[in-house]
Amino acid sequence: MAVRVGVLGATGAVGQRLIQLLDPHPEFEIAALTASESSAGKTYRQAAKWRANSPIPDDVASMTVSATDPDEVPSDVDLLFSSLPSSVGETVEPGFCEAGYVVSSNSSNGRMDDDIPLVIPEVNADHIDLLEVQRDERGWDGAMVKNPNCSTITFVPTLAALEEYGLETVHVATLQAVSGAGYDGVTSMEIIDNAIPHIGSEEDKLETESKKLLGSFDGAELTLNDVEVGASCNRIPTIDGHLENVFVETAEELSPAEAAEAMREYPSADLHSSPDQLIEVFEDPERPQPRLDRTLGNGMSISAGGIRESTFGLQYNCLAHNTMRGAAGASVLNGELLLENGYL
Amino acid sequence: MAVRVGVLGATGAVGQRLIQLLDPHPEFEIAALTASESSAGKTYRQAAKWRANSPIPDDVASMTVSATDPDEVPSDVDLLFSSLPSSVGETVEPGFCEAGYVVSSNSSNGRMDDDIPLVIPEVNADHIDLLEVQRDERGWDGAMVKNPNCSTITFVPTLAALEEYGLETVHVATLQAVSGAGYDGVTSMEIIDNAIPHIGSEEDKLETESKKLLGSFDGAELTLNDVEVGASCNRIPTIDGHLENVFVETAEELSPAEAAEAMREYPSADLHSSPDQLIEVFEDPERPQPRLDRTLGNGMSISAGGIRESTFGLQYNCLAHNTMRGAAGASVLNGELLLENGYL
Amino acid sequence: MAVRVGVLGATGAVGQRLIQLLDPHPEFEIAALTASESSAGKTYRQAAKWRANSPIPDDVASMTVSATDPDEVPSDVDLLFSSLPSSVGETVEPGFCEAGYVVSSNSSNGRMDDDIPLVIPEVNADHIDLLEVQRDERGWDGAMVKNPNCSTITFVPTLAALEEYGLETVHVATLQAVSGAGYDGVTSMEIIDNAIPHIGSEEDKLETESKKLLGSFDGAELTLNDVEVGASCNRIPTIDGHLENVFVETAEELSPAEAAEAMREYPSADLHSSPDQLIEVFEDPERPQPRLDRTLGNGMSISAGGIRESTFGLQYNCLAHNTMRGAAGASVLNGELLLENGYL
Amino acid sequence: MAVRVGVLGATGAVGQRLIQLLDPHPEFEIAALTASESSAGKTYRQAAKWRANSPIPDDVASMTVSATDPDEVPSDVDLLFSSLPSSVGETVEPGFCEAGYVVSSNSSNGRMDDDIPLVIPEVNADHIDLLEVQRDERGWDGAMVKNPNCSTITFVPTLAALEEYGLETVHVATLQAVSGAGYDGVTSMEIIDNAIPHIGSEEDKLETESKKLLGSFDGAELTLNDVEVGASCNRIPTIDGHLENVFVETAEELSPAEAAEAMREYPSADLHSSPDQLIEVFEDPERPQPRLDRTLGNGMSISAGGIRESTFGLQYNCLAHNTMRGAAGASVLNGELLLENGYL
Repeated sequence: MAVRVGVLGATGAVGQRLIQLLDPHPEFEIAALTASESSAGKTYRQAAKWRANSPIPDDVASMTVSATDPDEVPSDVDLLFSSLPSSVGETVEPGFCEAGYVVSSNSSNGRMDDDIPLVIPEVNADHIDLLEVQRDERGWDGAMVKNPNCSTITFVPTLAALEEYGLETVHVATLQAVSGAGYDGVTSMEIIDNAIPHIGSEEDKLETESKKLLGSFDGAELTLNDVEVGASCNRIPTIDGHLENVFVETAEELSPAEAAEAMREYPSADLHSSPDQLIEVFEDPERPQPRLDRTLGNGMSISAGGIRESTFGLQYNCLAHNTMRGAAGASVLNGELLLENGYL
Repeated sequence: MAVRVGVLGATGAVGQRLIQLLDPHPEFEIAALTASESSAGKTYRQAAKWRANSPIPDDVASMTVSATDPDEVPSDVDLLFSSLPSSVGETVEPGFCEAGYVVSSNSSNGRMDDDIPLVIPEVNADHIDLLEVQRDERGWDGAMVKNPNCSTITFVPTLAALEEYGLETVHVATLQAVSGAGYDGVTSMEIIDNAIPHIGSEEDKLETESKKLLGSFDGAELTLNDVEVGASCNRIPTIDGHLENVFVETAEELSPAEAAEAMREYPSADLHSSPDQLIEVFEDPERPQPRLDRTLGNGMSISAGGIRESTFGLQYNCLAHNTMRGAAGASVLNGELLLENGYL
Repeated sequence: MAVRVGVLGATGAVGQRLIQLLDPHPEFEIAALTASESSAGKTYRQAAKWRANSPIPDDVASMTVSATDPDEVPSDVDLLFSSLPSSVGETVEPGFCEAGYVVSSNSSNGRMDDDIPLVIPEVNADHIDLLEVQRDERGWDGAMVKNPNCSTITFVPTLAALEEYGLETVHVATLQAVSGAGYDGVTSMEIIDNAIPHIGSEEDKLETESKKLLGSFDGAELTLNDVEVGASCNRIPTIDGHLENVFVETAEELSPAEAAEAMREYPSADLHSSPDQLIEVFEDPERPQPRLDRTLGNGMSISAGGIRESTFGLQYNCLAHNTMRGAAGASVLNGELLLENGYL
Repeated sequence: MAVRVGVLGATGAVGQRLIQLLDPHPEFEIAALTASESSAGKTYRQAAKWRANSPIPDDVASMTVSATDPDEVPSDVDLLFSSLPSSVGETVEPGFCEAGYVVSSNSSNGRMDDDIPLVIPEVNADHIDLLEVQRDERGWDGAMVKNPNCSTITFVPTLAALEEYGLETVHVATLQAVSGAGYDGVTSMEIIDNAIPHIGSEEDKLETESKKLLGSFDGAELTLNDVEVGASCNRIPTIDGHLENVFVETAEELSPAEAAEAMREYPSADLHSSPDQLIEVFEDPERPQPRLDRTLGNGMSISAGGIRESTFGLQYNCLAHNTMRGAAGASVLNGELLLENGYL
């Protein structure tokens, strides 16, 4: 029997992706949609400016949107997917956890909190048990798990694959698609025939979230990984798919061939939305490319290529679909992990 | 009195830019245009598919194009600007030098040869005297000077400004405009809504040419700079302007403020095409941007911004107009240097 | 049992689309692939520069490509899909028909010939029987059916839906995607931040092919439709999907509501690749849009919107996926029609 | 001595263009800048998010911005250029006219009012004397002249050139640049790899403003032109430059050669910002193109091409720079006309 789930912030860009993923999902059943006060009471069709390239699922279109308030969500809903703006998430998400809901959140607030698991199931599924600590500390009946930022998700699985060689320093330059900023985040005047070499607090997210994702959890406490990451973020005129150039120095020597093998053999997870092959490695140095490779594994695979020796260490490129693997798909995957681990 | 000059490969994209720069130039007078055999005998208007956003200068339009052969170029032409494909340049450029022509070349062949000066006048003007060695060794009446690749020109002046702090290692990721590949170099199907994380032998050019440009010349021999550069090159859907993310580690400690000051105070050259301010430094971390900043200093300035501490060392972004500062303008500037130094 | 089919010009952009459509097709089985002499003898993986965003089907990848010559195609292949450049098609297609092959061709050569059926199955399936006349006249064992140009296919179904009101004059302005010119057809320098108000002989195709498609066939002769079409064609920076603005004057008065109803009710065909709804009509005047609506009906639907009264007559917009509905899908659909009508 | 002028709505996209044009203008001197209340009291550098590709003129940067209120503008300012949002313009512009200011406005409010001249100086300069009627009727000391919408300005001069042949019906399809919607008007998610076949009330503007511009003024009353215009407007991923496809039917027969000649010989005006050649006519059917031709005549020329016989009448393409000729430049030109005609 499917778990009854809700979407907080259901009308936004990531909210729409969540609905596309959850509607046909075998383990979940959409039972609640929330948005801002101004949308409350409307049908989803009225409330959402739907921009996906497939129609709104009929049953979802006719659902009534409620305000983003624990009192407005049916109590038989077990799991909430949150894609609220972080300023809103910060204010309302804890209330849902207190009220007993389990929240899988894509919002950036609280990601680095000591007792909030930040999880990519194929990378650090064991961190999910930080929820025990969280419940102890916060006295919540519910729980909160976060997925990292889209640009972090793109390169961390490739680092995880190389971790046995001892990660020391990483430089990463990102070429990020406009959808990462939300539907209205980047104007056309800003980006056509252009590139912007800075994205809000993005560089900080790559630098800190990666240390937490690659950290170790001993059942009581999370220890950050020692890797030092320096990031430089760029917005480019691409719709979907973040491409990243990575320079990595490891403690042990590592050849391009060994790196490719480590990535190819890095295991995926046994969850509904995990791709068969987590990291697709290309031999062609011109790949991966956003438009050609972002939909690999239903948009849930990472792809990598251009692995070569660099002046010190190794360099390579990687890519992921930022609103699938990097946002909506990441939250759904964490929902699946919560279910598998008995948190629902 | 103006020096009579010619353009080798006058119908190509860089050739067209050269004509735009040379036609109004006070020191030079266009006296010869060459192209492939199939264009020989045609007027320039007939031979060139002109794509600039200003009309062909009338006097140039009616000039007759000759084959790219020393016998076809009037002997009273003193200086030739070459923007031939490197495979052609390799074959024909030496013949022009032997025949007594001085060649300022944008073609990549021979750039790393021991006795060919590779010059950015504001950075290493003194390397021009390598021409004495060249003439001794090759027995040429003419001479050959090269300018570096467009992606190299973009970041080397910023490194030169920081050199007193002791350059150790550099990682650079480039976001390059399509015009860098020539008019037909990148198809629209390849690049719209996309990015390509690899450009032919571009990475190697950044890594090696920078060592030569920053090297020292003692009047007899050129010593390469010790800096270790690792480059990762990307093509993005931008018409003009290469943007680069630089991570640099120096021997001496260097704060962002010191780096900004060093760049701002780095002197320009006293040549006609040199901009008043060589490196424009932005405080706004979102700048420089290709569409907004590529035409600074008539397309001959470098711009920089986003200077901040990185996990080890410093990081910043820089930008230059790839067909102006990075190609045609670079060759013209070297022509001006040749004139000033008495090589014409 | 599946019909054995071949693809002439299998390595090109449309050829790759054909393979994507034919590989999983229940009625067809790929048994032959041809390309230019230089590809003959190679495996398809070696011969094709595959650019689709799904991998080459494994069984196809290992097939050996042969030259585009009737002697090189197995005789048990019944149906050939041709996406040859028209200059090549003109030379080689008749030889295949003579040799007994039935050819469903996307190439533009011969489309307006009196005895060659030009067919969109949902619009003029009855024209297929012009093949009887063709065989009589040409003495072919095989046969040749053509689909129209991609820009023609986009608007003709909407005109067909309005035909009962008496089509008199039509003005159509097209906004065409770059994929319509083939992979290398439009360079990025030509089209980024730009539009080109002319496409080869495209306007003529819209003006003449529409008259043939909407013409009537009495079993012996085809009579062209009287509609007068004036077309203006533009290339814009879009990957896939041709958008067209149509102004139509009809003999009988026609309200926007009647036009919308006529389009919605215009029947689809009962063929495997025909969409359930041939023409999707939007109420939102901002739709259809290429990126949002080109994949409707697996890329085989036409979409329309913005229907309103114009100064004389009616105006509306329509859209179709140019390499699916407008090229590869159109040829496959004609193949299905040939099968259903007993021509295989 | 230069006329002291002000800019209403100086921080917006058109306001910035106005400043770029007015700062070096020999006849005008910027003496007042207004913006919304939130900007009042700030320097222009603080108030404006400057996005032009040349720096803010120094003297303008340090000017203090005032509220858009007649009491806040120095009374020795004679002429105001207005680029306010139309809803704001509607509210505040009449107050400025009442207070004695002459306003040259780019805002769409009031353009079709009987006593407000809508002027393109090269087309209908004589309409300016409608100001006498306006002052009589409204009792204003000041006055108000409007320039048409950018998409109207693009094609009306070409129609004016053909008017002697008797304009009957016109169909026009526009391909409009994103800058026409203002800096934040079109998001990148809406337009990359896409086109939008509808722009607010744009079609209505083309259809009605053209009748007024081509109308006749007898000194007392304005009579609209009889031409019937049907317009279809599209937004495409281009930064600047509106391209339009025109189908025109005239009373008298008109060959493409006659139309080209009529356009080439259509006179420009003897005003500072009028280009030498008002309409540049291309023989190459692939021109005009936005990126190549928008800056002709400093962005104040119209260009045309692709003139050919259509099924009934003639068809051709035309292009103008939408924020120069179509907005800021149009208002400045009207200011010059006001000065020449003694209205200042």
